[in-house]
Amino acid sequence: MALLYKSDPERGRRWQALFAEHAPDIEFRQWPNIGNPDEIRHLLAWQPPEDIAALLPNLEVLFATSAGIDQFDTSILPEALPVVRMLDPAIEQGMIEYATFATLWLHRHMADYVRQQRQHQWQAHMITPAGERRLGILGLGQLGGAIAQHLKEYGFQVSGWSRTSRELPGITTYAGAEQLKAFLGECDILICVLPLTDETRGMLAQTLFEHLPPGAALINMGRGDHLVEADLTAALATGQLSGAVLDVLREEPPAEDHPFWQNPCILMTPHVGAMTQPETAFPVLLDNLRRHQRGEMMLGRVDRQRGY
Amino acid sequence: MALLYKSDPERGRRWQALFAEHAPDIEFRQWPNIGNPDEIRHLLAWQPPEDIAALLPNLEVLFATSAGIDQFDTSILPEALPVVRMLDPAIEQGMIEYATFATLWLHRHMADYVRQQRQHQWQAHMITPAGERRLGILGLGQLGGAIAQHLKEYGFQVSGWSRTSRELPGITTYAGAEQLKAFLGECDILICVLPLTDETRGMLAQTLFEHLPPGAALINMGRGDHLVEADLTAALATGQLSGAVLDVLREEPPAEDHPFWQNPCILMTPHVGAMTQPETAFPVLLDNLRRHQRGEMMLGRVDRQRGY
Repeated sequence: MALLYKSDPERGRRWQALFAEHAPDIEFRQWPNIGNPDEIRHLLAWQPPEDIAALLPNLEVLFATSAGIDQFDTSILPEALPVVRMLDPAIEQGMIEYATFATLWLHRHMADYVRQQRQHQWQAHMITPAGERRLGILGLGQLGGAIAQHLKEYGFQVSGWSRTSRELPGITTYAGAEQLKAFLGECDILICVLPLTDETRGMLAQTLFEHLPPGAALINMGRGDHLVEADLTAALATGQLSGAVLDVLREEPPAEDHPFWQNPCILMTPHVGAMTQPETAFPVLLDNLRRHQRGEMMLGRVDRQRGY
Repeated sequence: MALLYKSDPERGRRWQALFAEHAPDIEFRQWPNIGNPDEIRHLLAWQPPEDIAALLPNLEVLFATSAGIDQFDTSILPEALPVVRMLDPAIEQGMIEYATFATLWLHRHMADYVRQQRQHQWQAHMITPAGERRLGILGLGQLGGAIAQHLKEYGFQVSGWSRTSRELPGITTYAGAEQLKAFLGECDILICVLPLTDETRGMLAQTLFEHLPPGAALINMGRGDHLVEADLTAALATGQLSGAVLDVLREEPPAEDHPFWQNPCILMTPHVGAMTQPETAFPVLLDNLRRHQRGEMMLGRVDRQRGY
């Protein structure tokens, strides 16, 4: 029985060491060295190969290396193939670190200081006390809720919005389309951690920005397709928005002539908010492999109709 | 009775509004409009005027706008003049925000991403789990202790060093010259929040750097004179150190040709780690003014022999 890994090679070596030590009965193979494809029962991948059905005839489970699976083209997957998403505690930790960094970057004028250093300028900007800064979390799932609670500890005013109503201690929560405008009016910094669905695609657009306080800032840690990129460029040009931190783009990497590269109001990072860490993800994956061997239900199995 | 304010003008307007509302019996004057100098009993200043003794013959108390008073040339101050430092809760809050920002900047490779964006490069760097990153706090006074406790919550391995022994829950502490090397060996990121004294001046030098793990990083939030700047440039050039975040410099602003401006391994900010906030500092100052009026002991009075 073999498991095929198809994702980042450096982490592949760490996965391999973990399998060798803790599950030597499962042969670990790393793409593109797949060996005899008939022997491969499990695929662990960020993106499955395009010819998956023909290439791996005996595949029993597709494990995503990520928490979301919207990067999969599900139309190429065999209909009955179980798809399991990654439930790695390191993802929540990484997202909290990134959200905190991005919030402090905007809250403490760090884009100005980076620019000033290059221009040999030494000029302090006033510090707004955290208690006077309003943060809004768009999406209050497991990650959004954890980010909201964490940032609350700094003394920020934190509110959150979700599709369906959710309560969190110390956080003002809003729900549904009818409360979205009221929520946006309370967001000096808006942090998007929504899942990507047909309802949320393109949601970060001019029609949303105009309900934010003038000069608000945006952090997008969701997916690139949440944002209408031209609308962000326009809102930053007029000063309607003052800055943005983007970890995800519609096209990754963005085109060489993409205007965001050189926009001084935008900090862009290459989709590094969180990364699955083999050391913390391995126990979760192995538990699912053993469950599958015993014919039990796997944790994190995706409902392919619903999409998550 | 008048109080003369000599510091940042923008915050001067906020101090003025607070006095007008809550202590109208104390006339607030803002440098350089001092009016009749004989009427001035209190000076609230970042730097007192050089001719303080001659200029303000009836001065009763000098209040610093800052937590430290090492920027004062105490030789020009009348010997019997009480000096009081600022005990503003906003200072601790600001220092925690700055230390967290600077730690995450280094921990999450943000200097690389800022550089890559300018060069239109999209390349992710591995995330080191917080539990595998060792932070060391140099100086465990009120601020250093608060920073250590806060960063511990992210899961970092945190240790701290102070001149005299101090215990903090969850933090490995070291004390005195004989334990300094052992402490330094545990610091992937070293955060300096020491007070500036004859013992700590120039402490951040090659002789200290060589006991850090290879490729360690430095955050200086103490004073510029803690750092031997040429030694930092040399250590970054050889890769002995990998990066630095500096909020303080020996000369502020640094000279136009200072090598730090253009060093890609250094993030330099214009002494903005924390700022006294009139809104939170006013109650503390007013309490001291009333104590002085009643002939009681003021809080934060400096022992001029000891220097803090």
